[in-house]
Amino acid sequence: MIYLTRRERFNAAHRLFREDFSDEKNLEVFGKCSNPNWHGHNYDLFVTVCGPVDPDTGLVINIKILSEIINKYIIEKLDHKNINIEVDFMKGKLASTENMAIAIWEQLITPLANHNAKIYCVKLCETENNFVEYFGK
Amino acid sequence: MIYLTRRERFNAAHRLFREDFSDEKNLEVFGKCSNPNWHGHNYDLFVTVCGPVDPDTGLVINIKILSEIINKYIIEKLDHKNINIEVDFMKGKLASTENMAIAIWEQLITPLANHNAKIYCVKLCETENNFVEYFGK
Amino acid sequence: MIYLTRRERFNAAHRLFREDFSDEKNLEVFGKCSNPNWHGHNYDLFVTVCGPVDPDTGLVINIKILSEIINKYIIEKLDHKNINIEVDFMKGKLASTENMAIAIWEQLITPLANHNAKIYCVKLCETENNFVEYFGK
Amino acid sequence: MIYLTRRERFNAAHRLFREDFSDEKNLEVFGKCSNPNWHGHNYDLFVTVCGPVDPDTGLVINIKILSEIINKYIIEKLDHKNINIEVDFMKGKLASTENMAIAIWEQLITPLANHNAKIYCVKLCETENNFVEYFGK
Amino acid sequence: MIYLTRRERFNAAHRLFREDFSDEKNLEVFGKCSNPNWHGHNYDLFVTVCGPVDPDTGLVINIKILSEIINKYIIEKLDHKNINIEVDFMKGKLASTENMAIAIWEQLITPLANHNAKIYCVKLCETENNFVEYFGK
Amino acid sequence: MIYLTRRERFNAAHRLFREDFSDEKNLEVFGKCSNPNWHGHNYDLFVTVCGPVDPDTGLVINIKILSEIINKYIIEKLDHKNINIEVDFMKGKLASTENMAIAIWEQLITPLANHNAKIYCVKLCETENNFVEYFGK
Repeated sequence: MIYLTRRERFNAAHRLFREDFSDEKNLEVFGKCSNPNWHGHNYDLFVTVCGPVDPDTGLVINIKILSEIINKYIIEKLDHKNINIEVDFMKGKLASTENMAIAIWEQLITPLANHNAKIYCVKLCETENNFVEYFGK
Repeated sequence: MIYLTRRERFNAAHRLFREDFSDEKNLEVFGKCSNPNWHGHNYDLFVTVCGPVDPDTGLVINIKILSEIINKYIIEKLDHKNINIEVDFMKGKLASTENMAIAIWEQLITPLANHNAKIYCVKLCETENNFVEYFGK
Repeated sequence: MIYLTRRERFNAAHRLFREDFSDEKNLEVFGKCSNPNWHGHNYDLFVTVCGPVDPDTGLVINIKILSEIINKYIIEKLDHKNINIEVDFMKGKLASTENMAIAIWEQLITPLANHNAKIYCVKLCETENNFVEYFGK
Repeated sequence: MIYLTRRERFNAAHRLFREDFSDEKNLEVFGKCSNPNWHGHNYDLFVTVCGPVDPDTGLVINIKILSEIINKYIIEKLDHKNINIEVDFMKGKLASTENMAIAIWEQLITPLANHNAKIYCVKLCETENNFVEYFGK
Repeated sequence: MIYLTRRERFNAAHRLFREDFSDEKNLEVFGKCSNPNWHGHNYDLFVTVCGPVDPDTGLVINIKILSEIINKYIIEKLDHKNINIEVDFMKGKLASTENMAIAIWEQLITPLANHNAKIYCVKLCETENNFVEYFGK
Repeated sequence: MIYLTRRERFNAAHRLFREDFSDEKNLEVFGKCSNPNWHGHNYDLFVTVCGPVDPDTGLVINIKILSEIINKYIIEKLDHKNINIEVDFMKGKLASTENMAIAIWEQLITPLANHNAKIYCVKLCETENNFVEYFGK
């Protein structure tokens, strides 16, 4: 069993807020992250898969395929986008790093399984000081 | 003569576009950076001042004062803001990294001069791959 | 269950030594880290908490609160200090990265629990080449 | 129980390929990594050991000894070398990051055990975007 | 006048040696970098252009075009290649970082000039500890 | 003319203060950096030399020699030391980053000249947010 990680990056806008809260209430709960005019980040996404090493190739999964899957299912949908408005798999969810990591995990399970790769961890870094990790339920 | 640099950071949303262009034209000229729903970045700002070393303190300028000036005049206005909409010194300007670096320079000249510090360079990093430097006219 | 990490930093002086050892013996055991005149580091501290995502906020814990707790109980006591002499929770302990990580963990359990956050890991980096991680007993 | 990690670095050439494949087949399976004229990387190696803190020293293991072991058994054999041709513990193996991490682990078990240190993880970074971790079988 | 920098990366194998030197002489002059079986690096390339800000776009040059030029003329020729054997613009030259930076500069002058961009600096990093900068003659 | 830079690192303790100031006055002028019990940093030192490329070797100066000179004249004197007390070339000087950069420059001029290398810049980073550069008078 070995763990292989690929980093991909995206730049996006978002806002932490609830529609059923007033702007004041959102400011109280989410601070400056609730700015109604949005703010944004350079996100670093680390996707880790695990599995045995294929004796024919020496690889867990071809890293090019891993990169293509992450780009197709995640980066193309998030990069240079507004996370609250434009990302199908974030619709109806608070655009927190926590919720993003869980949603990214759920997006990747099936396409990775189709290449015999088991997702192990999604790590999402919002800034150099803040990040979350999700390992499934 | 010695050069002292302070890094500060901010997270903001922006969009590259011209109001007199159609969305199609903006997309053609600015690519995905023209997304009408905004995107954003973690910006790294490096401000360099130069001058002789004060023989009484061994310092060009107290780095705490340098940091306070950058925060008061720049970071508080940009952090968690929409650069196109909310930043007074960017009003009427294209929100490119180039224009931001020049505008930041102009904001800092006077407050730094008031502390006997001469601004030498503004370096603004939009991503780990893209940055601009401005040294004045 | 999701894991959220906050990085905070501090700069401090320390020395690895035992009072009951001679300087020669300390040098033999701890090498140049035993210098009686001290040396120091820029420490990077990563504190990871874990828990379910609060469905009302999309957060494990408000990262601002997490940062405030780490600053109040750890950074203010360590930053620009002498770890051997000035830090209450390190009194009587060898100022190794290992002992510091364990002591930081113990300082944070209660204040984090008071905010319904469970501490999962303390990672303390002494240099870019050396770090320790503590996950509790 | 605490975890201590040491980073060491090496620069090496390698190629992903199988002798029983044609160049075309190697290109199909391994892409540009199969270039017959080699390519290379700056590898970052992180070795993590775990154990109780020695109450006499405050250390899991003296980091200088940990560094010396990694250098003697791994770095001296890999640095500025061709991984496919010149490294005894990689003979007959595909020079993938996965296989390298496993082989490094196996090289380190005994010399670390001889210093009462238990190896916990080998993390090997090929680029800033790709890395593997091995925790033993 | 403003300066815009784009980073691109490539991984390559090389060797420092002179054909008219014996292996012993090469080892004496170039150390372990002369290994006849090659070694390699993850190179970081920073290309800086300078010019006035275009008042119509707020840009010195579209960063996408800058990236495409660097990729077409430099990265595609160097990435996953053997610098001594396979790179046309390095033929007959010692594959030192110094010579590479100068050759990259010479490759980029014309294509950048064709897009009204003036090359200002080529910075080439061989490791995190070693880099060269070339500003033209 | 080309510029070659070598990074070396050291960890040291220091204090910003004047003996002719009271502790209160030192605190007022230098803030927490004046702590009488010291604090410390991981310093990153970048030394840049410039010159023509030697046509026989493709090098400005052998980077191994550059590294050895920096280690002999600077790192061995600063690493794991108290800058105020133990470093000959800092005796009688305020231990500011500015003064350190200038003193390092002065230490290196002659040994580098003895190897036909001209020092161009000393860059000294105290933290990831603060650094100084000195280019000579």
